[in-house]
Amino acid sequence: MITDEQQPYFTKEDWINYIHGLQDTICIALEGEDAKASFHEDLWERPEGGGGRTRVMSLGNIFEKAGVNTSVVEGLVTEAMEKQLGISGHSWFACGLSLVLHPENPFIPTVHANWRMFELYDDTGLVIDRWFGGGTDLTPYYLFEEDVVHFHSTLKKAIDQFGPSLYSKYKNQCDQYFVNSHRNNEMRGVGGVFYDYLKPDKDLAVNDLFAFQKANGNSFIEAYIPIVQKRKALEWTGEQRYWQEIRRGRYVEFNLIHDRGTIFGLKTNGRTESILMSLPPRVRFDYDYQPVSGSAEETLLKVCQHPRDWIAL
Amino acid sequence: MITDEQQPYFTKEDWINYIHGLQDTICIALEGEDAKASFHEDLWERPEGGGGRTRVMSLGNIFEKAGVNTSVVEGLVTEAMEKQLGISGHSWFACGLSLVLHPENPFIPTVHANWRMFELYDDTGLVIDRWFGGGTDLTPYYLFEEDVVHFHSTLKKAIDQFGPSLYSKYKNQCDQYFVNSHRNNEMRGVGGVFYDYLKPDKDLAVNDLFAFQKANGNSFIEAYIPIVQKRKALEWTGEQRYWQEIRRGRYVEFNLIHDRGTIFGLKTNGRTESILMSLPPRVRFDYDYQPVSGSAEETLLKVCQHPRDWIAL
Repeated sequence: MITDEQQPYFTKEDWINYIHGLQDTICIALEGEDAKASFHEDLWERPEGGGGRTRVMSLGNIFEKAGVNTSVVEGLVTEAMEKQLGISGHSWFACGLSLVLHPENPFIPTVHANWRMFELYDDTGLVIDRWFGGGTDLTPYYLFEEDVVHFHSTLKKAIDQFGPSLYSKYKNQCDQYFVNSHRNNEMRGVGGVFYDYLKPDKDLAVNDLFAFQKANGNSFIEAYIPIVQKRKALEWTGEQRYWQEIRRGRYVEFNLIHDRGTIFGLKTNGRTESILMSLPPRVRFDYDYQPVSGSAEETLLKVCQHPRDWIAL
Repeated sequence: MITDEQQPYFTKEDWINYIHGLQDTICIALEGEDAKASFHEDLWERPEGGGGRTRVMSLGNIFEKAGVNTSVVEGLVTEAMEKQLGISGHSWFACGLSLVLHPENPFIPTVHANWRMFELYDDTGLVIDRWFGGGTDLTPYYLFEEDVVHFHSTLKKAIDQFGPSLYSKYKNQCDQYFVNSHRNNEMRGVGGVFYDYLKPDKDLAVNDLFAFQKANGNSFIEAYIPIVQKRKALEWTGEQRYWQEIRRGRYVEFNLIHDRGTIFGLKTNGRTESILMSLPPRVRFDYDYQPVSGSAEETLLKVCQHPRDWIAL
């Protein structure tokens, strides 16, 4: 039960408004950067309650496939949810933004971000629990250390104002989450930050929660777009594209085998096309593909196998 | 406990020998048909016991990627196995052949087959349970009804000698298994036969089990190769190849999200490269791809959405 002292000053309507505004802001920034393709919007409704705005762009100058989706959904707590999410209550509400951007150019990284709020209610409709989750992570195909440092530094700067240990904690959680355990714990990329079940605690005061979540969402454009601008003019070869498609295969593996949100959504009657917009447009699965020793491809692989600290703390 | 009357006349060595012979026979037939590429063999060992022979062919005249793998593995029954397989015992043994063939030509279907034996032992090494599983299923990209009828008829002919109702039963199980439930129960293809936990019962006498399993394995070449021969000279367009890559995406989705063997293998330290040889070499994931109304692509999709009986029974 949330006590009066824990009652945050924001409402779920505040969060919904923020998420929809952020979707607009990010889509406008991406369309401006792409300068060719624009987002196609599908509005959908969920039979059990709520719906979403799915926005997808494809075959742009920069973005081969890009999805920036929001959803505002609610329903009764099912047995599957109790089991998989470890929650109990009568009904629930969830609202979030999920984005995945797959550039065509192998020198521009793929990026993923998600910011969400979840509420649980008792059978009289009272809020009995509420938390935030979210994160942003980068999946390069070639390693430009300065890009990764820029990405992590921007996320850190957004978070640091809420507590000195938070970036480090959520950076490590990210390294532990986006892992293909079936490939000797190789990460799908170079991480970022990841957090879940974020409630008022010793690290984060109740009145900082909403501001923290907004700071994360607001940092996305600054974290990612400069990397696009820096790498978009680089020309690539067929071999580099090949490597990108192999690594995209690992992205598919992570999302379909391990990602909790994807699997839970697909198994609980989520909107399949909106969930699977995350999959890369063109992918290769070769048997036992190994990069050449000493190559740029091997350098990238090693950084996924052995996550680094990108910022001197 | 297996009683004396239930004790079959074959041993696990008989099954291992059969599986290795079948692997050779099928690989020779496929190399002969391809007439360009040949199988590369990787022998591997499993730290917990046993190992396998992985054979993969790529970039052939016919087969863009083909794997024909055998494994002979054993170990202690773990908690994960008890939970996921619903078994109990001290130790186990498994031996089987798995094949997946991905032709380049979109008019030649992808095919999958698997035949396996499983034994459970008590802590004195006595066999306490034993069963066969297996099946063969076809995944076309374009529908040639006569090919599907040939495929199903050949499987039926092999099975019919063991009981008049078996084909029908295992055909329906196949239709129910290879299903993308997250896509409104669309099948990944046009099915075939599928069976598991096959033990002596009212349908199948103990001394028929081994012969039944061999009849299934032996029927593969006759079921599939004539389809290759009939379609390999057909020329295809970029649009047809595009459709094949979209459908291959559904194949990836089924294998990584739903296939029990794949998920169990990946989560219990199986050999990842051998398990994931099943994934198609080149794949597309477009947002909300829909075939043109009235097209050959839509015809194929409808047949996956509404499984048919291919043989007048």
